[in-house]
Amino acid sequence: MNENERQVRQITQKSDDFAKWYVEIVQKAELADYTPMKGMMVIRPHGYAVWENIQRALDLRIKATGHVNAYFPLFIPESFLKKEAEHVKGFSPEVAWVTIGGKEELEEKLAVRPTSEAIIGHMYAKWIKSWRDLPLLINQWANIVRWEKVTRPFLRTTEFLWQEGHTCHETAEEGEAETLKILGLYKEFCETELAIPVLSGRKSLSEKFAGASMTYAIEALMSDGKALQMGTSHNLGQHFSKAFDIKFEDRSQTLQYVWQTSWGMTTRTIGALIMVHGDDSGLRFPPRIAPVQVMVVPISIGNWRESVLPVAQAAVEGLRSAGVRASIDAREEATPGWKFSEYEMRGVPLRIEIGPRDIKAGQAVLVRRDTKAKETVPLASLTSRVPVLLESIQAGLMAQARAFLEANIRDASDYQGFKDILENQRGFVRAPWCGGEACEDRIKTETMATIRVIPIDGDEEKTPGPCVACGGKGQTVAYFARAY
Amino acid sequence: MNENERQVRQITQKSDDFAKWYVEIVQKAELADYTPMKGMMVIRPHGYAVWENIQRALDLRIKATGHVNAYFPLFIPESFLKKEAEHVKGFSPEVAWVTIGGKEELEEKLAVRPTSEAIIGHMYAKWIKSWRDLPLLINQWANIVRWEKVTRPFLRTTEFLWQEGHTCHETAEEGEAETLKILGLYKEFCETELAIPVLSGRKSLSEKFAGASMTYAIEALMSDGKALQMGTSHNLGQHFSKAFDIKFEDRSQTLQYVWQTSWGMTTRTIGALIMVHGDDSGLRFPPRIAPVQVMVVPISIGNWRESVLPVAQAAVEGLRSAGVRASIDAREEATPGWKFSEYEMRGVPLRIEIGPRDIKAGQAVLVRRDTKAKETVPLASLTSRVPVLLESIQAGLMAQARAFLEANIRDASDYQGFKDILENQRGFVRAPWCGGEACEDRIKTETMATIRVIPIDGDEEKTPGPCVACGGKGQTVAYFARAY
Repeated sequence: MNENERQVRQITQKSDDFAKWYVEIVQKAELADYTPMKGMMVIRPHGYAVWENIQRALDLRIKATGHVNAYFPLFIPESFLKKEAEHVKGFSPEVAWVTIGGKEELEEKLAVRPTSEAIIGHMYAKWIKSWRDLPLLINQWANIVRWEKVTRPFLRTTEFLWQEGHTCHETAEEGEAETLKILGLYKEFCETELAIPVLSGRKSLSEKFAGASMTYAIEALMSDGKALQMGTSHNLGQHFSKAFDIKFEDRSQTLQYVWQTSWGMTTRTIGALIMVHGDDSGLRFPPRIAPVQVMVVPISIGNWRESVLPVAQAAVEGLRSAGVRASIDAREEATPGWKFSEYEMRGVPLRIEIGPRDIKAGQAVLVRRDTKAKETVPLASLTSRVPVLLESIQAGLMAQARAFLEANIRDASDYQGFKDILENQRGFVRAPWCGGEACEDRIKTETMATIRVIPIDGDEEKTPGPCVACGGKGQTVAYFARAY
Repeated sequence: MNENERQVRQITQKSDDFAKWYVEIVQKAELADYTPMKGMMVIRPHGYAVWENIQRALDLRIKATGHVNAYFPLFIPESFLKKEAEHVKGFSPEVAWVTIGGKEELEEKLAVRPTSEAIIGHMYAKWIKSWRDLPLLINQWANIVRWEKVTRPFLRTTEFLWQEGHTCHETAEEGEAETLKILGLYKEFCETELAIPVLSGRKSLSEKFAGASMTYAIEALMSDGKALQMGTSHNLGQHFSKAFDIKFEDRSQTLQYVWQTSWGMTTRTIGALIMVHGDDSGLRFPPRIAPVQVMVVPISIGNWRESVLPVAQAAVEGLRSAGVRASIDAREEATPGWKFSEYEMRGVPLRIEIGPRDIKAGQAVLVRRDTKAKETVPLASLTSRVPVLLESIQAGLMAQARAFLEANIRDASDYQGFKDILENQRGFVRAPWCGGEACEDRIKTETMATIRVIPIDGDEEKTPGPCVACGGKGQTVAYFARAY
């Protein structure tokens, strides 16, 4: 057993205990840490760097589609939260309340925002006067608090970070088009940047956002066979505009309520990155969002500080000039073997080893994190070869994740088969559903599976068979899974 | 009176009522808006875009000096806040408390962070073991809540946005060096990016951060003659490391408490931009942080949609390709004159007018926001001329602000002269001080001026005269001013 393997053996094997592996990786790779407050985590620099890359890539897309950023207050007066009946019912069990400010009891308690529709609705009513003010396309990056009972780092925490878009439109059609445009944007973002393929579609009414007309979502499959909701896009209809009196004078000078949408993605996506791509050696970050894309490890033998280190440093500089996020670990106190396993665990996509023999041969050894495949590359070709390899790793992770997703979508036409899949194989089960809440509830109670998405393309819905639970007339096909 | 002037006349003149002018500009330029919660504002897209540019430029500097970003919880248990005696005394009057979470009364109430030393100290104690873990250089971008009695948009609000750096070092000297490095970084940032010259130095002990050994600050002069603190850098000594038990094994295997610093800049800097550069026509944003650097206004005469608009659009595209943040206002419903005054009010550094006659002559008219000077530039030269002009505007605003600052630093050697300056001219008064808190208090009570900074260069402190208040032996020269 070499040193590399010894290090790895300190981590729970993913296949042995997925849940334990997950929380160990989060802590050992220093992505996050627990705090003395239940369910509240610290996002450590290595984890936050991933979030910064996610933010940058997502913000670019949000802005490219005409949205602008703003910042609304952290607090929401209780009376505002109560204005939309379904909204308050859905969120009030999860709210943290500020009751004292500056040593004085407040007259009205303030919710720490569990989502911002209520305060934003109030402001929009003030800002919007005419159809000329529409569409209003605003996004905010913010922290959110929901008092969760069962928590897990990144996946479900009392406080999390997210972006929340809140838009207003002249017509129902424009609202629906925006909702779907964002759903598509989220899907493309996850697949392109995170290398995570997703299913997209609408939620059943029982799973929709409290106050929405319709919720759409993207769902990914974690490597333990459970689904994770990656993002949601809500068509709010006129629920909030009526509750908050957001009216505009339309093109024929008639006062109308605006049509709204809201949508969000959160730090939960970091949990998905861990659970989709991670393996027994630790994290595997897709190069596009990896904090460090290439770690150069000089082999510390003999007079390496004089012979090897300058070449390794020059390689890093060259890669940086070529736009690669490259770093070097030249610490004396850690061995190359320790470093190899450390950066494998931390998910660095590509490792470059440079030792005295490599320098004599004018080359370096490149080791991919995804496949662990090695190749020898002339030093002079690093800046051309590395970007190609990074793209190949990005594509490789995506292909692997897609193959896993596709292999884990199974059809069920009867309830026994449905239950067997969930019991023995997990993944998504595609099955006809009558549309009844009773069947949805029964399935949830008996199998712990919920409807993750109902396809909206039309293709799959043409001729659903009989409902997998009750055998009644199938109204649609739905994707069921156990989920985080 | 032309339309342009009519628009302008709707704004209070800066010289008539500075405070009213300020809040009008904030709202009319749509930088921020009031909410129903006292002291809590919305940062609207136009204001938030400035903050994004400030963030980008400051974050680059913070990272270039070896710091990394992380995210710590919004809440701090009451017992943590109480660990450092001076800290809790300073902040507890301003804290908003969460007492209910998920419908249940909390066993221990949670402070909404008024600053994060306490929660970060707790985590650092867990993370730091050895000198090899030092220096620890972490920054966070976050929202902060302080229950303020008197509030004003951007300048003093119950919630604000900031960055807070929190570092740990092996020695007192390294802590002090970090504190001063950041002070210098802040000064350079303000002068280079915001075109706001600042005085830098240390605070008196009565004005230092609650829990610090020493607070350093940069102070700018607003155009009404009042000072504004732009950023602070605190040498925390071992106050928090002793309170939170943050120890490390030093190079001789002895356990030591770490030496710490903390430092921050806030959304208040946006208030400074308004008050330093604004004029009777509205905002004047320095090009480096202006959301839009160039606004192209096509002159809507005759068949302008066919003749003028395509040329104007091509100009915008050309400028964007050259890295300029250019935009176009091609709305039919607003006149060119209205647009001119609107974008002057919003502080766009450069306006480009293109009309039918300009197109015939193959030129455009460029109007600087800072001086309102016009020049005619061939269309083909726009991409070379505009960047030069933007740099000239940036430098012009800085020169103007520096001249104003320098003209408003006055020496006082006796108390009557000191009071006269503050009563009649305001600005900074440079005067010898005995170092006694009694004199500092007396000056504050009688003149409303406080010590803004005490120079640290040494030069000015060589031979202070007698204390301007008590006539006793002068210990140092200090800069006094009335301040926001």
